[in-house]
Amino acid sequence: MIDFEIAKPDEQLNAKIDHKIDLKTKPIGALGQLELLARQICQIQQTLTPNLIKPTIVVMAGDHGLANEGISAYPQKVTHQMVLNFLGGGAAINVFSEQHQIDLKIVDAGVNFDFGNRPGLIDAKIGMGTKNSLTEPAMSLEQLKLAMQRGSEIVTEIQEEGSNIIGFGEMGIGNTSAASLIMSHICQIPIETCVGRGTGVDDEGWRKKVNVLVQVQTKHSGISETRELLQAVGGFEIAMMCGAMLQAASLGMIILVDGFIACAAYLCAQSFNSNIRHYAIFCHQSDESGHRQMLEYIGANPVLKMNMRLGEGTGCALAYPLLASSVAFMNQMASFESAGVSNKE
Amino acid sequence: MIDFEIAKPDEQLNAKIDHKIDLKTKPIGALGQLELLARQICQIQQTLTPNLIKPTIVVMAGDHGLANEGISAYPQKVTHQMVLNFLGGGAAINVFSEQHQIDLKIVDAGVNFDFGNRPGLIDAKIGMGTKNSLTEPAMSLEQLKLAMQRGSEIVTEIQEEGSNIIGFGEMGIGNTSAASLIMSHICQIPIETCVGRGTGVDDEGWRKKVNVLVQVQTKHSGISETRELLQAVGGFEIAMMCGAMLQAASLGMIILVDGFIACAAYLCAQSFNSNIRHYAIFCHQSDESGHRQMLEYIGANPVLKMNMRLGEGTGCALAYPLLASSVAFMNQMASFESAGVSNKE
Repeated sequence: MIDFEIAKPDEQLNAKIDHKIDLKTKPIGALGQLELLARQICQIQQTLTPNLIKPTIVVMAGDHGLANEGISAYPQKVTHQMVLNFLGGGAAINVFSEQHQIDLKIVDAGVNFDFGNRPGLIDAKIGMGTKNSLTEPAMSLEQLKLAMQRGSEIVTEIQEEGSNIIGFGEMGIGNTSAASLIMSHICQIPIETCVGRGTGVDDEGWRKKVNVLVQVQTKHSGISETRELLQAVGGFEIAMMCGAMLQAASLGMIILVDGFIACAAYLCAQSFNSNIRHYAIFCHQSDESGHRQMLEYIGANPVLKMNMRLGEGTGCALAYPLLASSVAFMNQMASFESAGVSNKE
Repeated sequence: MIDFEIAKPDEQLNAKIDHKIDLKTKPIGALGQLELLARQICQIQQTLTPNLIKPTIVVMAGDHGLANEGISAYPQKVTHQMVLNFLGGGAAINVFSEQHQIDLKIVDAGVNFDFGNRPGLIDAKIGMGTKNSLTEPAMSLEQLKLAMQRGSEIVTEIQEEGSNIIGFGEMGIGNTSAASLIMSHICQIPIETCVGRGTGVDDEGWRKKVNVLVQVQTKHSGISETRELLQAVGGFEIAMMCGAMLQAASLGMIILVDGFIACAAYLCAQSFNSNIRHYAIFCHQSDESGHRQMLEYIGANPVLKMNMRLGEGTGCALAYPLLASSVAFMNQMASFESAGVSNKE
C-alpha cells in the first residue's frame, strides 16, 4: 500500500538543458531561481521544450479529534463551513485558481459533517474526523491505507484527464497540531520549535497547544515508523495528500507543495520514497513558524516568501505563474545567436 | 523641472480598507504581504474596490561613456543589440510581458547607435551615450532636464491611454556602475559595498570596477545635490526613469520598481520628492549585491526574492500577477458573513 515506484529522472539530458538555458539572451544565471525551476521541470518531463498542461489544485479537508482539546483559535465547524465556501467560490483559493485558470478540486477526506450529495465535492470521506490522538491513535491502519489509496486514485483520475502538474492544499481545524507532531518526529526537532500560532492563537493558546502536543507525544512515545506516526497523529487529509503526492511522482507529474501542513504530508511521503524529491516544487515559505526549518530539513528553496499562512493551496496558486514564466522563457526567449546579440567577451 | 507635485494619499479610508481585508474568510493577516499590497493599492486609488488597468512596462535604454573603462563583462554594442532584441520580441521581458498581457514600451533614452525610424521604438534620445564620468560630467544640466522631461511626457501619454499602473526597467551596458555611484552617494555607503558583479564580471573585473568607481568619486568629490549627482554619473536612462517615476506618482499611478538600476533612479526621485514612496511597489530583490542594502535604506519589502539580476523590467513583470492577486482577493473573496463561516471564538 505504501509502496510506490518512483523513477529518478534520467540525467542524460541535463547538459543539453543547461546549454539551452545558458544561450538565452541574458547573462549566465541572471534569471536566478527561474532557471532552477526551468531545469527541474525539463528534467521531470525529459524535454527541452517543457509545458504545463491542465494545472490542478486539490484541496483535501479533514477534521481532527484533537481539536476538542482547544488547540485552535477557530471552532471545528469552520472546517465544513470553509468546504462550503470553497464550493461556493468565495475562498482565497477560488479567487487565485480562477485568476490563473487552475482547475480546483475539493475533496472531503474526513470532515465531521454530512455534506450529502454536493455537486463539485469529491467524496473520499474516511470518517467523521479522526479520533483524539491525546487518548488513542487518530486512525486505524485500515483507515490510513484507505486514505492513501483514495488520494492515489484521485491523482490518477486527474492525470487521466490530461494534467501534468498538480498542487496540494488542505483545510482542517487543528491540522497545524498534527503537522507539528509529524515535523517533530521526522525532523527530530523538539515540539516547542515546531508549534506555531496556526490560524492565530495568542500566547496563552500557544502554551496550551504545546502542552497538549507534549502529552500526545508521550502517549505515542513508542512509535518509530512513519506509518505508525500517521496513524497516531493523523489526519485523514494529511494521509490522503501523502498518498496523492506519492502517486503524482510515480506518474511523473510536477508536484506543487503548499505550506506547513502540505509540507508535513510531503515529509511523510519522502520518508516512504525519497525519489519524490525530484518531482516536488516548494511553492512558498509560510509564516507558520516551523515551516522554515521544515524546508531547511528538506533542503528546499521555496518560490515565494510572502509571510502567508492560509493553506488551501493558496501558495501553489500564487507560485504557479512563476513556474509558467520559467517554462515560457525556455520555449520563447531568443538565443544570442538567433537574436544577433554579442555574448560575453 | 525637478518640481513635481505629489500628493500623500488621504488616510481617511485606511480604517475601512483594513476592515474589509480583516472580514475576508481567512484568519487576520493570513495573506501576509498580499494584504499589504492590497492596502497600498487601495490607498493609492482611494477605493475599496481597486483595479489594475492597462499595466505597462517601459524599458529605457542608454549607453554610458564609462563603459570605455572596461567595467562590464559585455561590450557596449550589446545595449543596442538588446534594444533590437526587445523590438523583435526575443528578450525575457517580451516573454513575461506577453504572459501577463502587459503593454511593453521600448525607449531609446540615449543609446550609442542610430536606430533610424524603427516601428515600436520610442525615440527620446538625449545623446549618443553619456560622456565618460571618469573625466567629465556624464551629462549637462540641459541634458538632465531634457531626460527627466521626456520621461515625464512618456508617462503622461501612457496614463492618457488609460493605464493606472506602470513599471520601469532598463538596458545599458555599464549602468550598474552608475547605479552604484548613485547608491553610494545617497545612502552614504562606501562604494565597495555598492559594487556587484553586474552582468557577470569575475574577481579581477570586480576589483577593476571598484578602482574605476573610486576614481570617479574622487573626480566629482565636490557634488552635494542629487541633480549634480545625476549630471556627474548619469545615465540618460536613469535620469529619464527618475523623471518618469516622479510624473507617475504625481498622476496617482502605481509605480513598479524593478532591480538595482531602476531602484537607483527611484532613490534620486525620492530625494527630489519623498511623497513618491506611497506610490512605489518594489518588485524584487536583485542578486546584484548592493540591492538588498538599497532596499533596506528605502525601508522597502520586495515582493519577490528569486536571485535574479537581469533588469529590463523583468522583476516588475514577474511580480505583476501577485499584485493582481491582491486586487482579486479584495474584490472577489467572500466575507465571514456572506459565506456563513464562523469567525474566531
